[in-house]
This record gives sequence, C-alpha cells and structure tokens, in this order.
Amino acid sequence: MLDPGGIDHDLIARLRLIRTPGVGPVTYRQLLARFSTPEAALAAIPDLAHRGGGPPPRVADAATINREVQRVEAMGARYLFAGRGLYPSLLDAIDGAPAALIVKGNLALLERRSVAIVGARNASAAAVRFARQLASELSRANIVIVSGLARGIDTAAHQGSLDGGTLAVVAGGIDIFYPPENERLQCEIAERGLLIAEQPPGTEPRARHFPYRNRIIAGLGLGTVVVEAAPKSGSLISARYATEFGREVMAVPGSPLDPRAQGCNLLIREGATLIQSADDILEAIGPIGGGLVAQPLRSYGAERPSADASDSDRAAVTTLLGPVPVPVDEIIRQSGLSPAIVQTVLLELELAGRLDRHAGGRVSFI
Amino acid sequence: MLDPGGIDHDLIARLRLIRTPGVGPVTYRQLLARFSTPEAALAAIPDLAHRGGGPPPRVADAATINREVQRVEAMGARYLFAGRGLYPSLLDAIDGAPAALIVKGNLALLERRSVAIVGARNASAAAVRFARQLASELSRANIVIVSGLARGIDTAAHQGSLDGGTLAVVAGGIDIFYPPENERLQCEIAERGLLIAEQPPGTEPRARHFPYRNRIIAGLGLGTVVVEAAPKSGSLISARYATEFGREVMAVPGSPLDPRAQGCNLLIREGATLIQSADDILEAIGPIGGGLVAQPLRSYGAERPSADASDSDRAAVTTLLGPVPVPVDEIIRQSGLSPAIVQTVLLELELAGRLDRHAGGRVSFI
Repeated sequence: MLDPGGIDHDLIARLRLIRTPGVGPVTYRQLLARFSTPEAALAAIPDLAHRGGGPPPRVADAATINREVQRVEAMGARYLFAGRGLYPSLLDAIDGAPAALIVKGNLALLERRSVAIVGARNASAAAVRFARQLASELSRANIVIVSGLARGIDTAAHQGSLDGGTLAVVAGGIDIFYPPENERLQCEIAERGLLIAEQPPGTEPRARHFPYRNRIIAGLGLGTVVVEAAPKSGSLISARYATEFGREVMAVPGSPLDPRAQGCNLLIREGATLIQSADDILEAIGPIGGGLVAQPLRSYGAERPSADASDSDRAAVTTLLGPVPVPVDEIIRQSGLSPAIVQTVLLELELAGRLDRHAGGRVSFI
Repeated sequence: MLDPGGIDHDLIARLRLIRTPGVGPVTYRQLLARFSTPEAALAAIPDLAHRGGGPPPRVADAATINREVQRVEAMGARYLFAGRGLYPSLLDAIDGAPAALIVKGNLALLERRSVAIVGARNASAAAVRFARQLASELSRANIVIVSGLARGIDTAAHQGSLDGGTLAVVAGGIDIFYPPENERLQCEIAERGLLIAEQPPGTEPRARHFPYRNRIIAGLGLGTVVVEAAPKSGSLISARYATEFGREVMAVPGSPLDPRAQGCNLLIREGATLIQSADDILEAIGPIGGGLVAQPLRSYGAERPSADASDSDRAAVTTLLGPVPVPVDEIIRQSGLSPAIVQTVLLELELAGRLDRHAGGRVSFI
C-alpha cells in the first residue's frame, strides 16, 4: 500500500517488526497471527514486553528501515516475506524459515524443483570437477541448483548450473562480495540466476550468519548433496538441517584415507543416499510431482497465541523454564494450560528479552 | 576305523562318494541320511541311477582315493567333513556347503570369530595398505581373517593377519601355488594360519573353481568386507554370497571417479555397511556371542529322502522339470507329493546324470 509520497507503510512496518531484536521468525508469525497487521503488532510490543517482565525491545526505527528499502530497490532487488507471494514454499515449510528474504535475479527459478549441492571449500580438484559436472547434468534435467557461493564445491555447483538455473544464498548482504574472488560469479548469478540473502544490504558476513545461510540452502532444496566434506564441517550441518526438514540427504563417497571424504562417508553410514552420478540424485528425489516432501514435525511454536494470559498463567510457565532448553509441548503438558496461553506467555517473555528459542521448538530462559 | 593294513575304510568310502560325478553336497547329505553309512550309499548308487533313467555314474575308484588320502596325509594336511567334527559350523550352515575340505595348519583358528576381507587383484597402493591395516587391527581384536590368496587385496589381508590368525581358501589343491608369487605366503599360512581347499591335491585352479572358493570364503565369515572392487568383479560375487547366507556385507567406499571403487559404492547403495575403520567392522558384526548369525532360508534340498518312489511319482516329478531351474518346493507343491518322495526322485535323476542343482534350492533337467 503506497501513500502519496510513494512509501509502502505495510512493508516498512513489516520490516521494522522483523528487524526488531527479539523478534525471530516464530515470534513474527505469532505476532501477525494475533494482531493481523504489522502496524498493530508493532504497537502491541511495549505492552507485551512489560507483561513479560522486561523493558520493551528497541524496535527498529522507521528511518533506518526506509533507507534499507531504498537501497534494496536501488539495487533492483526485492523482498519476499514468509507465507506470502513468491516466497518459496519448500523453505516456508521449515520451522523458523526466515521472515524476510532479499532476492535479486530471475524469480521464475523459484518455481522449479531444486537440489542443494554443498561441500568443502578446500575440495580436491577431482571433487570440484565432479560437483560442476553433477550440477550441469542436473540442470539439463531441469533441476535448479542451490548453493552458498563459498570457495570450492559451492563455486563449482554454481558454475555448472549458471546456464540451467542456480540459486546462491549468501551469509551477508547481497551487495557484499564474499569470498572476494567470486565477485564476478555473484554478479552473474544476480543477473541470470537468483541471489538470496537474509541479512540487509551492507551486512558483512559473520560466523553466526553461516548456520542461518546453511538452513536456507537446505530448506530450499528437495534434497542436499554433499560433495567432499570433513567431519564437523559446515556442509555436514547443512546435511543435518536437510534431515531435520525431512528432505533427501545425499553424499558422494570417497576413500576413508582422504580426510575430505570422511564427512560424506559418515553421512552415508548414518543413512544418506550414496551418490555416484546425477542419475542417482534424480532417482533419490523422485519423479516430478511424485510424492510430497515429508513435512517436518511442526512444533507448537507455530500455534497461534490468541488468548490473554493471567498472572498465575505467567507464573506457571516461568516456573517450568530454566537455562536448559525444553520443548514447548513439554511446558504445555506440565503446566496444564492451553497451547494458546503458553504461547502468549512465551511471546511476552521473548519480547522482554528473557527467552531464547532453539531448534525443535525448544525454549530456555536467557 | 582302521583295518590291520592301516586303511580307514569309512574315510575312503566317504571320499569315493564325494568325488563321484553327480554327487554334490546336497546329494551327499541325502545319501548319508538315507543309507546311514558311506559304504551302503555307494552300494545303492547303481540302482538309484537306474531308477532315475540313466547309466550309473562312474563312482570314484578306491585306488585313486587311496592315493589322494596318502598324499593329503604326507603333506601333513587332513580332511574335514560337513556335519562332523571340526568342520566350521558357520560354513556348515550354508546351503551346499562343501562335503569335504582339505586343511593344513592351525585348526584352532576355526574356533574363533572370523571376517572375510576380499577385493580387487589390481587394487591401488592405498587400498592394499588399508586392507592390510584393517586385517591387522581386526587380528588384534581377536578376529580371524578369511581371504582367497589372490593378488592385491587378498594378499594384503593375509599379510596383515598372519600373526593374529588367517584362513586362506584356495581354488585349486592346497599344494598348488597360485598365484606363483604367493608361494612363500601360502607356505607360511599352511604353518601359522590355516590353508583350506575343496579340490583334491594336485588340482590346478580353473575358472569354474573360483565361485566355489568365493562361496567358502563368504560362508566362513560372520561378514565379508570388500575393499576396492570394480562392478561385476569376483569380489562382488563373494558379497552376494554373504548376503545369500544372511551374513554382514561391508564395503570400503571410494571416489565415484575411481572405477575400482564403483563396485563397493554400488554395494553400499544396495545396503552394505560403509566401512571406514576396523571399529566399523567390529560394530557391524556385533559383540561376541551377541546374537546368532541369521540363518539363510533352508531349501527343501536338505530334507531327508527316506521313501521309495513309484513310477507314477517319477513321472509326476519329471513332467514338472525342464531346462529352466525351478525351486524344489515348487515341484513339491505342484506335484502334491511328499517332500521325501520328491527328494528321492530328484536324487535318482541326479545320480543318473539328468539333473542339475542350482543356488537357492532350484533344480533343472540337464
């Protein structure tokens, strides 16, 4: 909705909500579910935080968000919001999908089936070539390739699929070239492929951003293929996300004597599909429209918090919370309260800066 | 039972039976089950073959067998017979276990848990070293290693387990050095390990002997580990036998770009356990005494043929036979005859040279 000055107030309010500290994807959805519009949700925050027993969070100010929006538009990029419009439905299905994405490039790629290819930055020459070849062959089978624009396997995966369709998820802002040597590839993807970021423009990628990026990569694909990965590497984290999201996990094996293969071999031991060719990947993800992606278990985090909580409800919930993350459904069971009431109390606590949300719908006191 | 001249008549008769053309492991067991002693079985053969509609088989003559026995004894080797004495019980459990083995070396090794390690003759240097290391580490965990004395992986497996305990199954006679460059290793195994042959001394190994050898290797192990194998290689046949026998199948992965790894990768795709270390093997075969080896489905081939068959029984069974192998239980079901009668007719046909027995308890007309 644009006003005479060309400002989309709904967009600004939505982004202010998303960029407010303490408002994660779950809270964002709950606030919108309860208050219907971003503006109403913004207005309710101070009161909710007060009930949660803390100071109100510093809501992102309108001027900063305005500048962000102008910057995004100036770059020819745009926003996608969870649960709305072109936001990729596979990603939307995961717990804690980012509330907003900034994307630049060919949006039509989001309508095609996609597979993530990830792997070691210091991959062997043979593995790099193999990743490029897999990506290229999958492209010819009309599959879009998702990766993270890192050195090594990621770069090869994008190169192999640039002509056919490639999605690059970056850890920082879409205008930050990282790694620097991939600047040209990043620009090409922003033209012919699709460049995707969760962070606002200008954000330098930091260590904490990479797990978020890996979640998005795994969430965008019908499956994730790992090509060369050491144990405890970031690629294995992507594979774990894919498992968590109910997606196909695939890995390219290697000699046990090669440390860069041990992560993949480990994944296969744990049940990942062993991949020797693009055909193996096509077989693993199944025919077009042949069966839906398994839905991950939805935690109570997605329930709508519609009721007002009393002080005794708050006391009952906070008593059950501690520094060790516990599942929300455990709190609901032990408190005997309705899910809506429990969610309301948790929302208040989160906005008051007293609650952390963890994977698997678990929460803890900060 | 030795006579005054030092001749063990039971041993001679047993070997004459086993070495008679048309008497395979199944027939040998059935004849003994029906006629109680090898001598009585030998005496019955001409009549059985006549009822089966063919000429009597040329029963192995006593003088030849006498020479074989003397040769075996002169070498310090000895016989083991299926279902008796020290014959390895894991091997005895498989369908079509050899009726007789000739063994030389340390028989006490047969009492310990064992794992087969097999693989490519033209293996890479890295894989050879890895196989030797696996064998050596399993030895230290008190596991006996079984292999086939071939070049490459087999040789490495024996070398790594020579001190701890190694069983070598050869395709020809135990006095034939094959491959020639392994003569010294073969002699060492006959002293410190255990050398095992199905064929009589002096038999040069031929192509048809190798699948028999592979069966014995797979039958002796709690599981079979394949280290480097091309698709359609003999090592994969060993792995299929292990599957058929209900044993653990394990494979060491490798890069899809290495043709010598593709057989192993294929096995893993089909469900073999991916092996990266000796610990992975120990985990796969399970704790000592922790659960029995899964018993393969016993075909009717092992049923006791105790009844006499009438001419109409013979006609009913032969009508159901053709050049395409059919399961014996199918013949029993379709003929409506008792298993004992059907087995008797099949036994007669086999001794008459008219019946072939195949894997999985299937039979066909020759």
